Amino acid sequence: MTRSIAILGASGYTGAELVRLISTHPDMKIVALTGERKAGQPMAQVFPFLRHLDLPDLCRIEDVDFSAIDLAFCALPHATSQAVIKDLPRDLKIVDLSADFRLRDVAEYEKWYGQPHAAPDLQREAVYGLTEFYRDEIRAARLVAGTGCNAATGQYILRPLIEAGVIDLDRIILDLKCGVSGAGRALKENLLHAELSEGTQAYAVGGTHRHLGEFDQEFSALAGRPVHIQFTPHLLPMNRGILATAWLDGDAARIHEVLQARYCAESMIHVLPFGTTPSTHDVRGSNFVHIGVVGDRIPGRALVVAALDNLCKGSSGQAVQNANLMLGLQEESGLMGAPLFP
Amino acid sequence: MTRSIAILGASGYTGAELVRLISTHPDMKIVALTGERKAGQPMAQVFPFLRHLDLPDLCRIEDVDFSAIDLAFCALPHATSQAVIKDLPRDLKIVDLSADFRLRDVAEYEKWYGQPHAAPDLQREAVYGLTEFYRDEIRAARLVAGTGCNAATGQYILRPLIEAGVIDLDRIILDLKCGVSGAGRALKENLLHAELSEGTQAYAVGGTHRHLGEFDQEFSALAGRPVHIQFTPHLLPMNRGILATAWLDGDAARIHEVLQARYCAESMIHVLPFGTTPSTHDVRGSNFVHIGVVGDRIPGRALVVAALDNLCKGSSGQAVQNANLMLGLQEESGLMGAPLFP
Amino acid sequence: MTRSIAILGASGYTGAELVRLISTHPDMKIVALTGERKAGQPMAQVFPFLRHLDLPDLCRIEDVDFSAIDLAFCALPHATSQAVIKDLPRDLKIVDLSADFRLRDVAEYEKWYGQPHAAPDLQREAVYGLTEFYRDEIRAARLVAGTGCNAATGQYILRPLIEAGVIDLDRIILDLKCGVSGAGRALKENLLHAELSEGTQAYAVGGTHRHLGEFDQEFSALAGRPVHIQFTPHLLPMNRGILATAWLDGDAARIHEVLQARYCAESMIHVLPFGTTPSTHDVRGSNFVHIGVVGDRIPGRALVVAALDNLCKGSSGQAVQNANLMLGLQEESGLMGAPLFP
Amino acid sequence: MTRSIAILGASGYTGAELVRLISTHPDMKIVALTGERKAGQPMAQVFPFLRHLDLPDLCRIEDVDFSAIDLAFCALPHATSQAVIKDLPRDLKIVDLSADFRLRDVAEYEKWYGQPHAAPDLQREAVYGLTEFYRDEIRAARLVAGTGCNAATGQYILRPLIEAGVIDLDRIILDLKCGVSGAGRALKENLLHAELSEGTQAYAVGGTHRHLGEFDQEFSALAGRPVHIQFTPHLLPMNRGILATAWLDGDAARIHEVLQARYCAESMIHVLPFGTTPSTHDVRGSNFVHIGVVGDRIPGRALVVAALDNLCKGSSGQAVQNANLMLGLQEESGLMGAPLFP
Repeated sequence: MTRSIAILGASGYTGAELVRLISTHPDMKIVALTGERKAGQPMAQVFPFLRHLDLPDLCRIEDVDFSAIDLAFCALPHATSQAVIKDLPRDLKIVDLSADFRLRDVAEYEKWYGQPHAAPDLQREAVYGLTEFYRDEIRAARLVAGTGCNAATGQYILRPLIEAGVIDLDRIILDLKCGVSGAGRALKENLLHAELSEGTQAYAVGGTHRHLGEFDQEFSALAGRPVHIQFTPHLLPMNRGILATAWLDGDAARIHEVLQARYCAESMIHVLPFGTTPSTHDVRGSNFVHIGVVGDRIPGRALVVAALDNLCKGSSGQAVQNANLMLGLQEESGLMGAPLFP
Repeated sequence: MTRSIAILGASGYTGAELVRLISTHPDMKIVALTGERKAGQPMAQVFPFLRHLDLPDLCRIEDVDFSAIDLAFCALPHATSQAVIKDLPRDLKIVDLSADFRLRDVAEYEKWYGQPHAAPDLQREAVYGLTEFYRDEIRAARLVAGTGCNAATGQYILRPLIEAGVIDLDRIILDLKCGVSGAGRALKENLLHAELSEGTQAYAVGGTHRHLGEFDQEFSALAGRPVHIQFTPHLLPMNRGILATAWLDGDAARIHEVLQARYCAESMIHVLPFGTTPSTHDVRGSNFVHIGVVGDRIPGRALVVAALDNLCKGSSGQAVQNANLMLGLQEESGLMGAPLFP
Repeated sequence: MTRSIAILGASGYTGAELVRLISTHPDMKIVALTGERKAGQPMAQVFPFLRHLDLPDLCRIEDVDFSAIDLAFCALPHATSQAVIKDLPRDLKIVDLSADFRLRDVAEYEKWYGQPHAAPDLQREAVYGLTEFYRDEIRAARLVAGTGCNAATGQYILRPLIEAGVIDLDRIILDLKCGVSGAGRALKENLLHAELSEGTQAYAVGGTHRHLGEFDQEFSALAGRPVHIQFTPHLLPMNRGILATAWLDGDAARIHEVLQARYCAESMIHVLPFGTTPSTHDVRGSNFVHIGVVGDRIPGRALVVAALDNLCKGSSGQAVQNANLMLGLQEESGLMGAPLFP
Repeated sequence: MTRSIAILGASGYTGAELVRLISTHPDMKIVALTGERKAGQPMAQVFPFLRHLDLPDLCRIEDVDFSAIDLAFCALPHATSQAVIKDLPRDLKIVDLSADFRLRDVAEYEKWYGQPHAAPDLQREAVYGLTEFYRDEIRAARLVAGTGCNAATGQYILRPLIEAGVIDLDRIILDLKCGVSGAGRALKENLLHAELSEGTQAYAVGGTHRHLGEFDQEFSALAGRPVHIQFTPHLLPMNRGILATAWLDGDAARIHEVLQARYCAESMIHVLPFGTTPSTHDVRGSNFVHIGVVGDRIPGRALVVAALDNLCKGSSGQAVQNANLMLGLQEESGLMGAPLFP
């Protein structure tokens, strides 16, 4: 039975990526697409790459008949999302892709996002959407909060290692490299082709990136004590992809064993042979994660590198995976397309 | 009933693209992959982006049991292909992606490719693989010759216009812009990132590109008299995509009408609203063609621009589309995936 | 004797390129830099790549003491430029990089730019800044109007051919490929890295690009009768560079002879050996133009391809070259730096 | 007085970059260019971007009259360089850009480069070419060994900090991002545009990169005890540029003070205001280094980021700077050109 899907905020990159994924999903059909500023426009005008699809025109959220919707994806900007979701029907299944419901503690939310939360009760209800680690909760959830794309990448490396106790919790460094689509369709000088191509730089340096709130919340809960990692991302001249390089204190062979054991039954997450590391080229456009482990020449130090596509597995692909669970569909449904290479 | 597929020459880009497309094809299963120099290697080593698939290792052509194969894709280099195919079983269905069987006249083949043809009888048997124009012949064919990727793009613009008699046949200019994957995985200085990114140049200038052999053959047959177009391609710093700009003598509105009428029933080919032109961004990774028509400020002159993905619709996607027809499957099967944007 | 230079509008790409070129100019010194919205900021903040230089902070135009200025470069937006220049001292030497003074006929200006001209008397005074063709006039000029970057590229190909009468004036097609910096630092979706890299498209199609006003003016004057070329540019995923492909009716060998004869004494313009064509890679960051000629397989048809750097020779480099002439300096001064490759 | 310069190995990127820099050097003139495989060819054929220069054709090394040469740059491949240099006149001033003379200890050389050294006496004579730290030795040297480009970047960050004793020597992590020209003009699949653009990956992981030999040698000498850092580079889709991110244990403010004090008198090295970090965009094509320092949210941890152009300051620009010293010229001569942006 085909499920009826709405996408709120369909004029941004994560919204468009949802449409792309759902367009070949065997059990989902898009029945509503919203975009406040572009309401009334056909999607083929906003995103000509979707021209071949028979899609509803963009409309306002207030014009959506939610009684006919099985699940809504909410791809709205941070802060807007909570304001919208709190007024939606309370029995509507929702996967939110914004940052609004990722942090369970409202004080943490306020600290990282600089404003009080507008829907604290929903924040408590929301399930954190890192599928492979919250599968049962997601299956039972009404509201799932998609993770940050950087936060997902780091957690795929670190969660099993923290749980297994094989790394020094006070010595976790995450040097992350990410593509520009993670910044969305925002019009900023540093996102122009002329200023981004052919060069790189760090940003949100020194522990100021908001995804640290997610790392702190999740890792501390896992460890049963506060864990604060060091994390700085770098903006690379590429559109899709995150490569996370974790510099760790721990035995590389043991780390590899732990990751292999944890992920051997996961269809989306692939641990490479020991001593090899992944490339973002090999996951682009897909819902897969590649993880590699190498030992450093200094004994007791290890390098773990993970690659995923920020728009897909890091955001919209994860959202579809979670929606599959929430709707009682097969988890992989619509998500096993191969990466695009070259 | 699932069809058993072999891909000969699976270590190049078109071979890998075939694997990508077939990996989500509902009615095809890859049972043999060959690569002479890399025989014995798993595909995950040659193309790590295919790691998630359960694929046979690369083997030699002589090790393939062709009696178990329903159809073989031949993605071998030019000239190698004819030597291999002439020794394959004569009842094996084959889609060849090389240039070897595109030209029906052996003298033309020798002129453009600089050597006598090794299998002239097969050359006569082969059907030219431009699906939308040879659909019935392809359905009945045993051996289909995939078109050149540039040749396909130009023909999508020009065939309906030549047939309809709406353009001056002695004034056809095709200024083409193409991505680098069209050159294959060859190790050449001008294909290095350092020498290709951030710049552009023409190549095969002044009517020397081999795809002109295809244009001459097809357009002359359509017109019933010799037609020789002007065609020069340019190499662009992008991996996938062809944008063909045709400068034509003819009435733009009439040209648009002819193209719309010809393609309105085609699922893969989209004619844009009059006055708008396509972008390669909007077809990347897909089997779609976008075509736009504009009038020039000089009356009686028109511009027609077409965009497609050289590796997909221009090569491997076309090959799968033709294989679908040859195997009695639905033509669109496995080919309706949306483009990847951004 | 060092000349004192002001740059009005120094916060855009052409302004920054002027600073780059003048920073190693032996006879010029920058004494004022203006930027209305960023007044008060040091250049190192607006353009960190200029950090090593000892430059004045950005100020407002009204704060510049023009009595101490030998020459002002005006790198302001179109329309703004005329409003500013008409209030500057009437004896100040000015090189304007905007479109405001390129068209001698106010009606033509209004047609292409959509508004009446605010300083028609200055428009009549201005000398068109295509150095190699207006050298004497520029030397004597007070106000020089920099050409459009596309317009310059096309003219380097076509002016000598029109003058020599070796091409059909009613059959001139200019298919141009240009880098994104030509669009300036404007915040537009289609200039974002995510939407521009890895793809291409036409723009200002069918004879609507404003640089056609310059082509019409200059070519018609040269020919002594109206000449209207066909011209459509394409946006490429590269920051700098214009490649212009001219499709011409004429004898290729004769065309090559004419171009060689015309440019053999020019230090900035290099005609390649017959049968070879240029790459934008080979002129990036420089003030050089490379031009190549090839014959088409159809007798009497030729291809001429020219490459230059739109920000340098197409704009700011040309401006410095003209300023050198106006100030009585050596024309090549500060402009002989080699291109940056790779 | 103009010095006569030979460049041995002028058909690679560092050779071409030397020509670019020397082409506007006021006191150097290129009188010989060698390239064994391309001997007899004009440079304009090998590197068309140098077409505007009046250069000698490529010749064989044996055809160079070294008695007329004041200084030779040796831009030959690793291992070839030592074989060539040991047969050159023993009074010829040489700046070698290869790895052959960087390691003073022949055992270390053999360990990192996998073969015995062919000219151990020259290895002892050679001065390590990190200009700002070996200025006096370089001025007096006959043979200077250019540093590795990654090794230079790391040392600009770490040398002053190790000397000042402000960081934990057992906790030095260098996560480096570099452009593809550092790999030279080698024909390898992973350097093709199709396989490199739009993605990233680590390489030489876990302490296997050869530049670690330089780090070990230099840092251990400075510290007076063995220092072994952790260092893994990543290949980025850009042609020029190295961004080195150092994760350090130490007080960020103190680190900033030390770096500022050390470099305030250096014309090529710029320490940014505390809390800001550099971009490779801002040094491309130049001989400048930008260094930034930020504190981590974890007290006692700091991030230092440095950016330079691998082909210029990391290799050929450094070589010219050293040659200036060896020839008694002004150190900055020919090296103060501004970066190319955008």
